[in-house]
Amino acid sequence: MTTPRNRQVLLARRPAGVPQADDFELTSTPAVEPGPGQVRVRNAYLSVEPAMRGWVSAVANYSQPVPIGGVMRSFAAGWIDRSNVPDLPVGTRVTGSFGWQDYAVVEPAAIEQVVADEGLPLQAYLGVLGINGVTAHYGLLELGRPRAGDTVVVSTAAGAVGSCAGQIARLHGCRTVGIAGGEHKTRLCKDTFGFDVAIDYKAPDFNEQLAQACAGGVNVYFDNTAGPISDAVMGHLAIGARVVVCGTAALSSWSPWPQGPRVERHLLVKRASMAGFVIFDHPQHQPVARRDLVQWIRAGDLVYLEDVLDGLEQAPDAIAGLYRGENLGKRLIRIAELP
Amino acid sequence: MTTPRNRQVLLARRPAGVPQADDFELTSTPAVEPGPGQVRVRNAYLSVEPAMRGWVSAVANYSQPVPIGGVMRSFAAGWIDRSNVPDLPVGTRVTGSFGWQDYAVVEPAAIEQVVADEGLPLQAYLGVLGINGVTAHYGLLELGRPRAGDTVVVSTAAGAVGSCAGQIARLHGCRTVGIAGGEHKTRLCKDTFGFDVAIDYKAPDFNEQLAQACAGGVNVYFDNTAGPISDAVMGHLAIGARVVVCGTAALSSWSPWPQGPRVERHLLVKRASMAGFVIFDHPQHQPVARRDLVQWIRAGDLVYLEDVLDGLEQAPDAIAGLYRGENLGKRLIRIAELP
Repeated sequence: MTTPRNRQVLLARRPAGVPQADDFELTSTPAVEPGPGQVRVRNAYLSVEPAMRGWVSAVANYSQPVPIGGVMRSFAAGWIDRSNVPDLPVGTRVTGSFGWQDYAVVEPAAIEQVVADEGLPLQAYLGVLGINGVTAHYGLLELGRPRAGDTVVVSTAAGAVGSCAGQIARLHGCRTVGIAGGEHKTRLCKDTFGFDVAIDYKAPDFNEQLAQACAGGVNVYFDNTAGPISDAVMGHLAIGARVVVCGTAALSSWSPWPQGPRVERHLLVKRASMAGFVIFDHPQHQPVARRDLVQWIRAGDLVYLEDVLDGLEQAPDAIAGLYRGENLGKRLIRIAELP
Repeated sequence: MTTPRNRQVLLARRPAGVPQADDFELTSTPAVEPGPGQVRVRNAYLSVEPAMRGWVSAVANYSQPVPIGGVMRSFAAGWIDRSNVPDLPVGTRVTGSFGWQDYAVVEPAAIEQVVADEGLPLQAYLGVLGINGVTAHYGLLELGRPRAGDTVVVSTAAGAVGSCAGQIARLHGCRTVGIAGGEHKTRLCKDTFGFDVAIDYKAPDFNEQLAQACAGGVNVYFDNTAGPISDAVMGHLAIGARVVVCGTAALSSWSPWPQGPRVERHLLVKRASMAGFVIFDHPQHQPVARRDLVQWIRAGDLVYLEDVLDGLEQAPDAIAGLYRGENLGKRLIRIAELP
């Protein structure tokens, strides 16, 4: 029995801001056998998230930072190729926080989902049926609390979370306004993701377009940016508006702490609220969200895009690429063919 | 029957920022008799609120601005001295938005409270039993949702709203931290209003004192400032913190729009929320709040201070004085002795 090599992407140093390719290094060591009560997962798809910037940052965050020299933390999907757990036979398809590596030896508790055959591809469970879709579902419905007829504005609207949030809002009878960068993404918002209005934040008349699209007031703002786009939307809140703080993609560094227009007066005058969340706090919401999402996808009511890079060597630059805005849809890295 | 003179304080021009004495003018005209279905109120006490800055501002707000040449909008307490309404006989004590003037002719709908004799002075119904106490009660309990053992931080803690919010938090079993300006107000917070910790924001080691007082994290922040004090507190939020945006006293102007450290990252990492409110939206909460407040005051559990200026001619400078921090407790103007 040959021992396969386990290629790993390690965090080589603490990045300042968005992690770049040279903040990581690739190594290769023999794959480890699982111990008693453990399984070994062969990763097929690795996930790339904007939130990874936070995971490697030493600045106050919602999780311990990835240690220097440690395997980069990541969701991944694959199959069990060695098992010392009777309930998890070889071949079982799973997702979990398995890291940027070929093989992960884990306890069963580390497995997030055992993926049953629902007629959907395995990698969907990393995106629209994984962190991205569940994040959009929880944030929009639990914190945004949209009502039919509401105007719902979504930033990074062509992204994996934003496109899903916009479609869920539309499925709840809302009028949806998507904000994205560039003509191609803007068209995608309209034509593929079905936003009622799509606005290019790079357009010279962005503020005028936004004012026109939000003339009746913004009831729900689902934000992923925390930058100038957000500041522009805050000026159009309706009375009782809910602002969902899902991400801070527009902030490239937290040192010095970024400044911006104060929000207090908007919140006061509009009796509005602004709330942040971390989806890992809400595991009980995952089955609820997945049940809805699977149903909508199968009915053709919810679509998603994937941006699949081939080969583990693509991983180190993949986060920086997200922040360069080069991907359309959920970014994944394929590192093995499913058996 | 002599017709009394009705002295009025009119808004002479649109102030830039905090309204100053010379933004107003005093006039005197004969008092008007009430028409059918109307009463005339003789004002005894006029109220002075930080929110008045907003009421005279043309910038987006929660109410139409006071027109130039109009009587300054204000809560007032007095008695009915002429009545064409059988249910409201002469002598009835009332509060309402009667304006900065000696006499107000109003419909019964304009009367906010008919003040029954509860053994408390009439002017209390403008402060601790009026807008200030009801604001503190609603904001703290409905938006702050304090739980016993929570650390509750209050800014402008020696003020009419802040001191009340802090005491209500203490009565709900919370540990209370009050922030006020200067040694005298800080001592007042400790000795009179019973805050567990009181911090002088003018002290050179304010940040260190705050960090020490909030080492376990801030569960509820009741803010009246929206300035550097607020920014300092935001750095100490506990997971799941609730920030209540009650006022924006630290912002002297909204043009250009004030800048400050962005709050999004705090809200996200701490799964926190920040919500504004306008107490006039919640008339149904008034009797609930007043019942609690009357009971606490009578039991000696809740104390309040008043800062009473004598004479209508004090009114024009009274708002600016609030922002200069010269008052201790609820600022009122006494313009007539109760019969």
